[in-house]
Amino acid sequence: MLKDLRVYNTLSRNKELFEPLHPPFVGMYVCGPTVYGDIHLGNLRTFISFDVIYRYLMYLGYKVRYIRNITDVGHLENDSDDGEDKIARKAKLENIEPMEVVQRYTNGFHRELDKFNLLSPSIEPYATGHIQEQIQMIKELMDKGLAYETEGSVYFDVKKYSKDHHYGKLSGRVLDELITSERNLSGQEQKKNQVDFALWKKAEPEHIMQWDSPWSRGFPGWHLECSVMSTKYLGQTFDIHGGGLDLQFPHHECEIAQAVGVYEKEPVKYWIHTNMLTVNGQKMSKSLGNFLLPEQIVAGDHPLLKQAFSPMTIRFFVLQAHYRSTLDFSNEALVASRKGYLKLINGLKTIKSITYQAGDNPLNKKVLQQVEQ
Amino acid sequence: MLKDLRVYNTLSRNKELFEPLHPPFVGMYVCGPTVYGDIHLGNLRTFISFDVIYRYLMYLGYKVRYIRNITDVGHLENDSDDGEDKIARKAKLENIEPMEVVQRYTNGFHRELDKFNLLSPSIEPYATGHIQEQIQMIKELMDKGLAYETEGSVYFDVKKYSKDHHYGKLSGRVLDELITSERNLSGQEQKKNQVDFALWKKAEPEHIMQWDSPWSRGFPGWHLECSVMSTKYLGQTFDIHGGGLDLQFPHHECEIAQAVGVYEKEPVKYWIHTNMLTVNGQKMSKSLGNFLLPEQIVAGDHPLLKQAFSPMTIRFFVLQAHYRSTLDFSNEALVASRKGYLKLINGLKTIKSITYQAGDNPLNKKVLQQVEQ
Repeated sequence: MLKDLRVYNTLSRNKELFEPLHPPFVGMYVCGPTVYGDIHLGNLRTFISFDVIYRYLMYLGYKVRYIRNITDVGHLENDSDDGEDKIARKAKLENIEPMEVVQRYTNGFHRELDKFNLLSPSIEPYATGHIQEQIQMIKELMDKGLAYETEGSVYFDVKKYSKDHHYGKLSGRVLDELITSERNLSGQEQKKNQVDFALWKKAEPEHIMQWDSPWSRGFPGWHLECSVMSTKYLGQTFDIHGGGLDLQFPHHECEIAQAVGVYEKEPVKYWIHTNMLTVNGQKMSKSLGNFLLPEQIVAGDHPLLKQAFSPMTIRFFVLQAHYRSTLDFSNEALVASRKGYLKLINGLKTIKSITYQAGDNPLNKKVLQQVEQ
Repeated sequence: MLKDLRVYNTLSRNKELFEPLHPPFVGMYVCGPTVYGDIHLGNLRTFISFDVIYRYLMYLGYKVRYIRNITDVGHLENDSDDGEDKIARKAKLENIEPMEVVQRYTNGFHRELDKFNLLSPSIEPYATGHIQEQIQMIKELMDKGLAYETEGSVYFDVKKYSKDHHYGKLSGRVLDELITSERNLSGQEQKKNQVDFALWKKAEPEHIMQWDSPWSRGFPGWHLECSVMSTKYLGQTFDIHGGGLDLQFPHHECEIAQAVGVYEKEPVKYWIHTNMLTVNGQKMSKSLGNFLLPEQIVAGDHPLLKQAFSPMTIRFFVLQAHYRSTLDFSNEALVASRKGYLKLINGLKTIKSITYQAGDNPLNKKVLQQVEQ
């Protein structure tokens, strides 16, 4: 290894020396998209950040198994286990099979990421490809008394879990406050407590994505797939788990609870979260309507833009801020990135064009080697 | 619809008028690759052929749901249900997780197909994404008395099936001849008859891809996935099933037996098979060592080639023969295709560059419209 690497671990809220569990191997799991629509620039920022982390770890000499999942079932419209499945809803709107929605937006996701020069992960597993393993994990949680069934749906018992474990340690949320602050929404009355989260949801007859289970024909809860797929491909404890900051709670907090509940050990050594992309200080999101699609920037086709920008300019823009800082989007910032990127590329070209003398000193040779990489 | 379409149906050995079950909808299922290696030009020919069939059906006004699967488990090294799983074997050789093999070659497959301008199918389902449904279909076959378990593996009882049904009607094979000609290979002793085929295989402990089932931890037989996924996405009877000629037997014959066994109706209205690509009259195949990868042709990097050819030239070459005829590969044939392709493209350019007068006759306008498409 070239030198010590230090990473900020959301779990400890400290910069820690990076020491993988089984060097030179590194296992990294990053939460991928729910494929019911196009990704916006904020999503892209997360994936570019982890692309650079992936590349940097390999550059340091690690052999990285990088898992980034595709969520193709179970992600409901809001975090309180009510509302429709995002993909089933889109399928109904467009009057096609849910898996056609999945195919269309998975293809689109891959096309975007290719355009921005992201490496493919080692494995890109699908939630629907691991229904059996998810049912198995629910059974194990029930055996441990940490999950209960109500009318065909199964929920994780957060209060029971918190007797022995700290629910909220990743996100800093306090359980008592969560209990009082959670709104009483439809679909909540099956739960012992409002903070409990779904592991399995019984499907309404008209719900078009459903599978057999010991409890009902239904579908798995969103948080479960990541616990199952990270365990399957990286083991019960692995090195890095990443994702956008907005996934800290409830998604990642629930992942920890599920894994600790079954395996009685911490699933992840280093939690890495990327910060938000903002537009005039406001988080970029679909619900706020202030989002830009990467293709709009490449085409220069958006009210916020005065011109088009190349994918590499956008990538450079994204990488100018540290992944843990917010990054504010504007036409001016992209213009500045364009200048910076061209300067860098022209500098590299100049260095490459210089001919070195045979007897040149070792330092120059080293510089040249680095540039060639 | 523009005009009547007639297709050769392997099942009837006749050209038939194409009348979809639920016009204007058409359901088409094509067997995709087993993702344990790069596809060669022969494989590519099959997928280009079905790409043109897909486009032509849409051009005629049909709304096509086109399913092309990815085989990521269950395809053994030979057709007699012995030998290793192709993907598990590759994973062992390369010392990586089977799903890393799947990811690598699925990515490569998509990259190749993009290069040759193939449209993405509507859904691209994975065998591992349908384990539960495959187990369900085995149960139903057992309930009907058409499948039996031996030492944790489950086989389809071909002799029993043939009492009421014609096993061999697609491929023209004769059951009695099959029984005497099948070699007695290892792994066959569990079967009542040599012609029986695996629906579920118990995994050896060292086999790295395995799932729970009522019979054993194991994996599904190769033929099963296509029956399950075509039924799930296209229904118990659908319009078109396609694939390479070499899949007629045993793969497609077994698919029919499985579907007829459970649903008691024909699964497919029109069976379409593409013929082989040959090199000096010999089938192009990996085992014969006479195969070319598409990228070798694009790079001009193969002993059989004198130069490089563009993907569009290769696509044009493939489409010069009818998909039901053999197509012989040679450097000369590609040179001729290059000429033909350039002539066509230049002709199109010329037609497009002609300016039409305002008062021009309707026929010219119609020609222009067709060219614009």
